[in-house]
Amino acid sequence: MTRADGRSFDEMRSIKLTRNFITHPEGSVLIEIGNTKVICNATVEDTVPPFLKGSGSGWITAEYSMLPRATGTRNQRDISKLRQNARSVEIQRLIGRALRMAVDLNKLGERSVIIDCDVIQADGGTRAASISGGFVALYDALGKLTDSGVIKDFPIINHISAVSVGIVEGEHVLDLDYSEDSTAFADVNVVMNEKGMIAEIQGTGEHALFSGSDLSKLIMLAEKGNSAIVEQQKKALCL
Amino acid sequence: MTRADGRSFDEMRSIKLTRNFITHPEGSVLIEIGNTKVICNATVEDTVPPFLKGSGSGWITAEYSMLPRATGTRNQRDISKLRQNARSVEIQRLIGRALRMAVDLNKLGERSVIIDCDVIQADGGTRAASISGGFVALYDALGKLTDSGVIKDFPIINHISAVSVGIVEGEHVLDLDYSEDSTAFADVNVVMNEKGMIAEIQGTGEHALFSGSDLSKLIMLAEKGNSAIVEQQKKALCL
Amino acid sequence: MTRADGRSFDEMRSIKLTRNFITHPEGSVLIEIGNTKVICNATVEDTVPPFLKGSGSGWITAEYSMLPRATGTRNQRDISKLRQNARSVEIQRLIGRALRMAVDLNKLGERSVIIDCDVIQADGGTRAASISGGFVALYDALGKLTDSGVIKDFPIINHISAVSVGIVEGEHVLDLDYSEDSTAFADVNVVMNEKGMIAEIQGTGEHALFSGSDLSKLIMLAEKGNSAIVEQQKKALCL
Amino acid sequence: MTRADGRSFDEMRSIKLTRNFITHPEGSVLIEIGNTKVICNATVEDTVPPFLKGSGSGWITAEYSMLPRATGTRNQRDISKLRQNARSVEIQRLIGRALRMAVDLNKLGERSVIIDCDVIQADGGTRAASISGGFVALYDALGKLTDSGVIKDFPIINHISAVSVGIVEGEHVLDLDYSEDSTAFADVNVVMNEKGMIAEIQGTGEHALFSGSDLSKLIMLAEKGNSAIVEQQKKALCL
Amino acid sequence: MTRADGRSFDEMRSIKLTRNFITHPEGSVLIEIGNTKVICNATVEDTVPPFLKGSGSGWITAEYSMLPRATGTRNQRDISKLRQNARSVEIQRLIGRALRMAVDLNKLGERSVIIDCDVIQADGGTRAASISGGFVALYDALGKLTDSGVIKDFPIINHISAVSVGIVEGEHVLDLDYSEDSTAFADVNVVMNEKGMIAEIQGTGEHALFSGSDLSKLIMLAEKGNSAIVEQQKKALCL
Amino acid sequence: MTRADGRSFDEMRSIKLTRNFITHPEGSVLIEIGNTKVICNATVEDTVPPFLKGSGSGWITAEYSMLPRATGTRNQRDISKLRQNARSVEIQRLIGRALRMAVDLNKLGERSVIIDCDVIQADGGTRAASISGGFVALYDALGKLTDSGVIKDFPIINHISAVSVGIVEGEHVLDLDYSEDSTAFADVNVVMNEKGMIAEIQGTGEHALFSGSDLSKLIMLAEKGNSAIVEQQKKALCL
Repeated sequence: MTRADGRSFDEMRSIKLTRNFITHPEGSVLIEIGNTKVICNATVEDTVPPFLKGSGSGWITAEYSMLPRATGTRNQRDISKLRQNARSVEIQRLIGRALRMAVDLNKLGERSVIIDCDVIQADGGTRAASISGGFVALYDALGKLTDSGVIKDFPIINHISAVSVGIVEGEHVLDLDYSEDSTAFADVNVVMNEKGMIAEIQGTGEHALFSGSDLSKLIMLAEKGNSAIVEQQKKALCL
Repeated sequence: MTRADGRSFDEMRSIKLTRNFITHPEGSVLIEIGNTKVICNATVEDTVPPFLKGSGSGWITAEYSMLPRATGTRNQRDISKLRQNARSVEIQRLIGRALRMAVDLNKLGERSVIIDCDVIQADGGTRAASISGGFVALYDALGKLTDSGVIKDFPIINHISAVSVGIVEGEHVLDLDYSEDSTAFADVNVVMNEKGMIAEIQGTGEHALFSGSDLSKLIMLAEKGNSAIVEQQKKALCL
Repeated sequence: MTRADGRSFDEMRSIKLTRNFITHPEGSVLIEIGNTKVICNATVEDTVPPFLKGSGSGWITAEYSMLPRATGTRNQRDISKLRQNARSVEIQRLIGRALRMAVDLNKLGERSVIIDCDVIQADGGTRAASISGGFVALYDALGKLTDSGVIKDFPIINHISAVSVGIVEGEHVLDLDYSEDSTAFADVNVVMNEKGMIAEIQGTGEHALFSGSDLSKLIMLAEKGNSAIVEQQKKALCL
Repeated sequence: MTRADGRSFDEMRSIKLTRNFITHPEGSVLIEIGNTKVICNATVEDTVPPFLKGSGSGWITAEYSMLPRATGTRNQRDISKLRQNARSVEIQRLIGRALRMAVDLNKLGERSVIIDCDVIQADGGTRAASISGGFVALYDALGKLTDSGVIKDFPIINHISAVSVGIVEGEHVLDLDYSEDSTAFADVNVVMNEKGMIAEIQGTGEHALFSGSDLSKLIMLAEKGNSAIVEQQKKALCL
Repeated sequence: MTRADGRSFDEMRSIKLTRNFITHPEGSVLIEIGNTKVICNATVEDTVPPFLKGSGSGWITAEYSMLPRATGTRNQRDISKLRQNARSVEIQRLIGRALRMAVDLNKLGERSVIIDCDVIQADGGTRAASISGGFVALYDALGKLTDSGVIKDFPIINHISAVSVGIVEGEHVLDLDYSEDSTAFADVNVVMNEKGMIAEIQGTGEHALFSGSDLSKLIMLAEKGNSAIVEQQKKALCL
Repeated sequence: MTRADGRSFDEMRSIKLTRNFITHPEGSVLIEIGNTKVICNATVEDTVPPFLKGSGSGWITAEYSMLPRATGTRNQRDISKLRQNARSVEIQRLIGRALRMAVDLNKLGERSVIIDCDVIQADGGTRAASISGGFVALYDALGKLTDSGVIKDFPIINHISAVSVGIVEGEHVLDLDYSEDSTAFADVNVVMNEKGMIAEIQGTGEHALFSGSDLSKLIMLAEKGNSAIVEQQKKALCL
């Protein structure tokens, strides 16, 4: 097997992060992973969900959506069907959990950061891109809060990124594009911090089951991919 | 009165049209009018609304939405409130009517073109920008249909653009930005063809009423603005 | 061209206003313009929308709906489709903006008047009739508030009415009925005060575009029509 | 106890039926029972619910709604809450069952009659008024179907009316108005045919329970009330 | 006519009440009437609906639902259709009214008891079973409130149960199962207290009308059935 | 650390499977894992989703819901909020994917099996229980289809079960109950077939990240747990 775009099995597509993409949000990043493009905007609000009121703790949450023509055929908007796309619900819960692992919520104090991830062009790996781009937008928004003295200590505790790995035609490969994703035997999204510790893992044997030893190999590939992303995130953030 | 950005009263902001902005749609344009940025994607579908079935006639419709942080404060997504924003409903009906005037629907045949206008950054004039950018996306989508022989005659009959004009601090001005729009005494959106004929007009005396003679002056300003937009549309379309 | 009901081009249909039509509301008017019949009920509530809390200013808003059989074929109720009819959304926003121009919202104080416009029989011009009838219901509700001492100064500052004008078979005509409206080349709704100043204008070239000079002629017709309506409104209000 | 309006315990309020109230529907009746006013419009459609397709049988259904200011305080429209008022759901199911008892559904053939009952002013007894007025609208719609030869035999088999009875301050009374209804110990709606046979009964011990012998007395009162209504229905229908 | 399960016309199916069926609720009962099985869970909450705030009075309300396969064919969940099943709305309003008659709401104080009735298997009579089972769950929840001293006086004032009666093939029968219910000429649900006083009655002439004398016979049958249920409720409650 | 119920770290709670729990469904199982109780009902329908029409392939899907009082405090029903609980959306997608791995969808032919998982009592591990119980209900439904000759070959290809594993107070433990789950550092659900191959894995570092080597240990625990469940599933199915 050779990959359509000539990449080796353990090679990421190009990674591009554009900070301050939109002027209004507290953090705004356009992330491009190959042809996948996601706008990640971070908004700070002075409220927390009811279950945190009076706790002193803050909250990070995410919303994920695709423009109708981010894909080859047009998808109806959620509001036309009066129900949020179930796949989007699943994905935005994942993004929220992943990015909460990045932050000491007590240092954030009783405020929320909402990460809006809007996919404008999709070519596989949109949930991983949303997490990796969302982290940079979150970092910027928290930076502004700290710089302006609203919060005392910069609350980032883990540098979070995500990547998809999978088994395609029997090969363990990194960073599946859409054509690979749709024929993969297994598709695993791995969220890690900068040390390769796992924050979240979601793996599906889409057309076949996989073994524990497959999983170990995929985790190692994911470490390699996440490490490449962290490098670009840090470069973009001038760290 | 001087305008914040130094423009003369009858001067447009910079106009930029990027064709083929997204790869999947049949037509895709990023339109930038000053700091207002709208992605306009055109999708062709082989169906028509029930009232046109069997008529031989096609349909053009539009959907308008803003990303949550297209504006200074975050707006909840429509799906979070289970109802489409009323302002968006009003605007997308306007866009649809305006762009239907561009096309001979019988030549289009029993198919639909959906124009998705997604505002990623708002600074006034988003509905006018959606119409002007949407026209170019529509033009491209219809061009592909004609080039591929799906339809016989290119069905564009009017070259449509739109602009906002208004009365700000007593002056009749062209192309209001957000700060002007929010203090305007009157705010009028004018949709025209390339000959200055009116396809649609929507005017509101937001803080004061205006006279028939005010309206005549505003229509003349609108002609000037639309003519500048048509020039840029044609340049982008290499006409 | 002659009009089906024998009217001259610049002639209104019969106008009838019945005050106190329903006993419960603070203002209640049945307006009949030819065969178009709309119940306009005004309700005073002691709350304002969130963006006005603490501002000292009040609010006027409107809701527009049609009974399922106000028209030739039955329309499903909004609740059956779980979404408000888009045309109704557009119309009620227009009615709200128009009637807010009638009132000094600071004199009203932090309270709201809701104008419910329910079309029980439709024959063209329902949005204009809703504004003209709604004004009288609003006038009565504000009168009660003033008479009872709840507000000090009667807050009406403009006497508001509305009419539709259009181009039918090449002629500029006043007050289109349904059969005229459905074949009109242009259909323009004009909201004015008693001096012929424009509060709102909405014009659509439904089957053809129109010129600035067409628009001027239509505005003059609208002045004539609105002046006839104001006369009937004043008569009904014993002014 | 004496009744506020001086009626004897077994006396109906005034009953007024206006046929052809709205021009568009196949049957249209304004029913006024005292100060309660309901517009009942009947629409014929050439479809039946899925469970009747191919059965040769027709269907009668009803929708019930109140204008926001039919009552002393304003009720939000259903669409504002995205859910139909539960009381309305209960009532329109009752109206539908009651009016189906009026018709031989096989003679109707595979078509539906929808009875829209819109309360424009409420003073107690709106569900009973909707049934009594709805019957006349249904009668007219079926008459037109028969006269025009669409159906062969006039399918009315029961002459249906309804009335409320109850126990107020210990007395068994007929046709409760709003003030009586809100203090009643028991409130029973009885739907009958012209012979006093029961089509439907709904009784609630609102503030106290009642005995089987109370129920018998109330049924007798209901017979008297329904008989008065049938007389007016027949007069309106010129039978 | 003989009944499919060999019962005499005035005989109930087997009645089984299992208290403390689920561990979490304040009251939890599985009621089985023949093959009909309903889980009735009572929840105490420290809030009341807006119209009771500050009144010192409490509230009892009910929610009724069926599992998708409680019936022979699968019913879509309410959330799939974004609207509550209309039959469920009607039934839960009945259950709520019935159980409120059981309680002195002033003794309850400003708190609510919600009775969730979830039908896991349906064979006719689910609404009656919900009321009879719901009463026992309510009794237990109120017992806990009294035992723990939250409320001073045990607020039960009527011992409430319910049963269906009807006319099947000309016979007046007690406790209809699904096959009888679907062919019944009349179907009457009667809610009573332990003395045979009526709290609520809902009767429908489904395929034929019935007389006042039929109704009297059915009420007597209902008394017999309710008395059998009360006996089992008391036994379950060790009274 | 010792577990509250005295279990060793690699020990499952008691597992109980009751087949034919409800009479109507094609497959019906009550699964009890400790105090967690889920009713799993399988329904066969002769339709497939649009994307499978004409493909010859069938579909397995799942719906997951909790009774309002399955938990310590009452949860509002989805329909009360007009939106499906986001956690339920995530879980039912997992159940559907897991159970599709059990079946050769081509052998099933163009029909669907819907697995309704209704949690009546929750004490941790409800999603795993739903999969394990749902498999048995699915097995029964497919058995009936095969026995009756509707499908030729019994289409089960993997024997699917699921279990949760996690890190609690530093220990790797099997089958977390609610109290363990709410304090776990990591919570991983593992779906396997009878040979220990992975169909799906979902792991969250809820309060801390975990390493690849932690993950390997958890997978081994999951194998042990799933093997115990498969044993009980086979016993229940008399295999």
